Amino acid sequence: MPRTIDLNCDLGESFGAYAIGEDAAIVPLITSASIACGFHGGDPQVMERTVRLAAQHGVAIGAHPGLPDLIGFGRREMSVSPVEVYAMTLYQIGALSAFTKAAGTRLRHVKPHGALYNMAARDGKLARAIAQAVRDFDAELVLFALAQSELAAAGEALGLAVAHEVFADRRYESDGSLVPRRESDAVLDSPIEAAAQVIEIVTTGRVKSRGGAHVTLRADTVCLHGDRKDAAAFARVVRQELDAANITLRAPKI
Amino acid sequence: MPRTIDLNCDLGESFGAYAIGEDAAIVPLITSASIACGFHGGDPQVMERTVRLAAQHGVAIGAHPGLPDLIGFGRREMSVSPVEVYAMTLYQIGALSAFTKAAGTRLRHVKPHGALYNMAARDGKLARAIAQAVRDFDAELVLFALAQSELAAAGEALGLAVAHEVFADRRYESDGSLVPRRESDAVLDSPIEAAAQVIEIVTTGRVKSRGGAHVTLRADTVCLHGDRKDAAAFARVVRQELDAANITLRAPKI
Amino acid sequence: MPRTIDLNCDLGESFGAYAIGEDAAIVPLITSASIACGFHGGDPQVMERTVRLAAQHGVAIGAHPGLPDLIGFGRREMSVSPVEVYAMTLYQIGALSAFTKAAGTRLRHVKPHGALYNMAARDGKLARAIAQAVRDFDAELVLFALAQSELAAAGEALGLAVAHEVFADRRYESDGSLVPRRESDAVLDSPIEAAAQVIEIVTTGRVKSRGGAHVTLRADTVCLHGDRKDAAAFARVVRQELDAANITLRAPKI
Amino acid sequence: MPRTIDLNCDLGESFGAYAIGEDAAIVPLITSASIACGFHGGDPQVMERTVRLAAQHGVAIGAHPGLPDLIGFGRREMSVSPVEVYAMTLYQIGALSAFTKAAGTRLRHVKPHGALYNMAARDGKLARAIAQAVRDFDAELVLFALAQSELAAAGEALGLAVAHEVFADRRYESDGSLVPRRESDAVLDSPIEAAAQVIEIVTTGRVKSRGGAHVTLRADTVCLHGDRKDAAAFARVVRQELDAANITLRAPKI
Repeated sequence: MPRTIDLNCDLGESFGAYAIGEDAAIVPLITSASIACGFHGGDPQVMERTVRLAAQHGVAIGAHPGLPDLIGFGRREMSVSPVEVYAMTLYQIGALSAFTKAAGTRLRHVKPHGALYNMAARDGKLARAIAQAVRDFDAELVLFALAQSELAAAGEALGLAVAHEVFADRRYESDGSLVPRRESDAVLDSPIEAAAQVIEIVTTGRVKSRGGAHVTLRADTVCLHGDRKDAAAFARVVRQELDAANITLRAPKI
Repeated sequence: MPRTIDLNCDLGESFGAYAIGEDAAIVPLITSASIACGFHGGDPQVMERTVRLAAQHGVAIGAHPGLPDLIGFGRREMSVSPVEVYAMTLYQIGALSAFTKAAGTRLRHVKPHGALYNMAARDGKLARAIAQAVRDFDAELVLFALAQSELAAAGEALGLAVAHEVFADRRYESDGSLVPRRESDAVLDSPIEAAAQVIEIVTTGRVKSRGGAHVTLRADTVCLHGDRKDAAAFARVVRQELDAANITLRAPKI
Repeated sequence: MPRTIDLNCDLGESFGAYAIGEDAAIVPLITSASIACGFHGGDPQVMERTVRLAAQHGVAIGAHPGLPDLIGFGRREMSVSPVEVYAMTLYQIGALSAFTKAAGTRLRHVKPHGALYNMAARDGKLARAIAQAVRDFDAELVLFALAQSELAAAGEALGLAVAHEVFADRRYESDGSLVPRRESDAVLDSPIEAAAQVIEIVTTGRVKSRGGAHVTLRADTVCLHGDRKDAAAFARVVRQELDAANITLRAPKI
Repeated sequence: MPRTIDLNCDLGESFGAYAIGEDAAIVPLITSASIACGFHGGDPQVMERTVRLAAQHGVAIGAHPGLPDLIGFGRREMSVSPVEVYAMTLYQIGALSAFTKAAGTRLRHVKPHGALYNMAARDGKLARAIAQAVRDFDAELVLFALAQSELAAAGEALGLAVAHEVFADRRYESDGSLVPRRESDAVLDSPIEAAAQVIEIVTTGRVKSRGGAHVTLRADTVCLHGDRKDAAAFARVVRQELDAANITLRAPKI
């Protein structure tokens, strides 16, 4: 079992006068940053600053395209068609990649945001539209997708490198799916527990579900939520625990 | 005097359910298309379709970035700073270029739209911000700028290829500037007259101003307005006249 | 059976430089206008003009609130909560009512648009949120709702006057629901047929379904679609047929 | 000299997932709240919550319409025409008033925001457009305007009650205008100093300019900035100082 994983976080979700997240504190702790592209959050100046920040810390940069719903922060599902999803994904990848070009670096991955991520995890047609947009832009990009989801399958079917994603602070069901957020024990509040879950996944390839069963789970990248109230402090503890466990942190395919 | 010029038109300004312009009728008549990027007009699906349409007709594709003002169609000047202009230009160029990549072609030029074009024509700092964004994205791109403007100068100072742009249907002052739109004789309503003006510019390097003087005017590309009521019919006549005059039409630097 | 009905149409859906619909041709033919409020279409200037146009023709004015989705023209369903729907409905009603106040007239009804209309027709919680917003704004307003829908029920439960709405150009199922648009015989293409359907509904209280059965259908207002390609011509024929059949056209509760 | 003044602050400028300002801490300290209407900040749910908050504290509620520029927070001047300004102002007043109706209270004043406020202070045509929108909506509303500005004059010319506004934390020139923000001594950083300035204005009708001269200044309402980093703490000290000086705080015309 390789004791290696990628640690990713969503960054660059501020907008105009509105600040959100603790990007400067989190960026030194992670190996991949998924940067908002102006639809659910982010704006051109925020994107420029965030790309430079990530580049300065040697963090791999990804596009984080979302639904066109700034009021809802991209978290409200919409009945969008595959052709709409294809076009909005391609648009946002392109927009972010302009800032990586200008910063003398390059785009490494794409991770859909919020409701788009969730819809693509279970809807094969939307999944394929996203994977196609990624491949049409650059077949070398890594697609970040919920582990064992329709999106992961769609990416693999198109020949993309797919990073199966697990969540440090989310509890799992015995079938490997996430406990829905509306349930009381959906989220791990302790960073020590979250780190322990990651370490179990990395070292054993399995996660202990809330029912107590140990479920096989492929994991190439671990998501740290940037929008927890205690995001930076939480991330710091998780990072320390992973370092202490001799887990090597590394972006996929660098 | 080379009897060669580029004929360009703004395309792809429809948005969602809203159709504007006669793109399908105009695209066979021109050699360069400046395609809206979603800020003043255009949306991801419109961009995708318009890029494919231009590519099918062998028309050179440019990004047409505008101010973030859909209600005002990017025609209302805003007090934006150079850093804001740099970031919004880069964003829009990147977004459009994603569609050219997906269509297996590439971006050839950038032309700012509406109020952004006008502001950059006279404000050196905004001009430099736009030219810098173009160069940082791809130093091979051609910058379309009002002939002899601050934007043309800024592009040349940064080493970009600049296409000096003249207007088929706009009358000129004796200093080479455009007669302001608010004046009654600002616009040439006859396509024959407009074509004659273009032919004079191409063959003599000069234009007859409304005062009667012949003014030297550099011209690498001629703009046909896509938002005239009679845009396609107007364009057709201009094109026929140019063909009849043995003017070779060709995108800059293809 | 009272031989009276209201004839309504959606108006004011243009936006900035983008024109849509044939408002000037349609307004003389109808008795109620549902005017877009800036979320799915319409902008403040369009609203002002459209309110004045309707007022000049003595047409009853309603607010036509939609989802915040200009790209999708408010036709894409979104997972919005009742509190979100309550607030967005109240906001849009208020915005439109400002223009009726300024025009020296007043607001008569509210009709949700597009996906919001469809969602509220079947989801009791969203229906109640809309009805509550209407009542909290002005308990005298008439709520326009799909005949026999959850929205109609919610309005009646809150004591509002509800206008049950039928569609001139849509075919009905034997349970009184609309044939879904994706089916080939969903839409009546002939205005004569559409008028005949309306006349049957008004004079008999029943509609002939596509299966051939005659279904009881309450109808207080008939919708003419403003976004048909032939909207004005279609409306003109329907209006003439209704006049010829001595149907009295009148806005609800004027 | 009446020892009475209104203390106002901008509230409700959060948007979706984005929080800004310290509304809950500031509302108990003020007598008038100017609430954002969704163009430069605010959204329907934020408006609803903020109206209820203000109503609970007996604070007079005003609409705070801004330019349609969320990225720029309404602070970037735009070349908008009087008809555009009239319509956008009317729209936003109406939208906010829907929430005051639903909360069982009513709208008391209108204060333009940011760049719209500044443009209307010096441009008589835009000033008149705003004043006309206020009067057309409700002639009983109080118009908040920079003391002795074009906007104040336009409101008075149309017969509106105008509250001349001064700023607690801004320094004045000897002609009664504000020291521009770009100058180093434009802002008073000490709440004690700011309160002293307000007390001088209220009790003497004059302000000490930065040049040392005492300038006559009409003041009906004092603005506390809600977007200072220390906004709530600053407001608390100013309020205590005014209370200690026996200044009566009261909304205009309640």
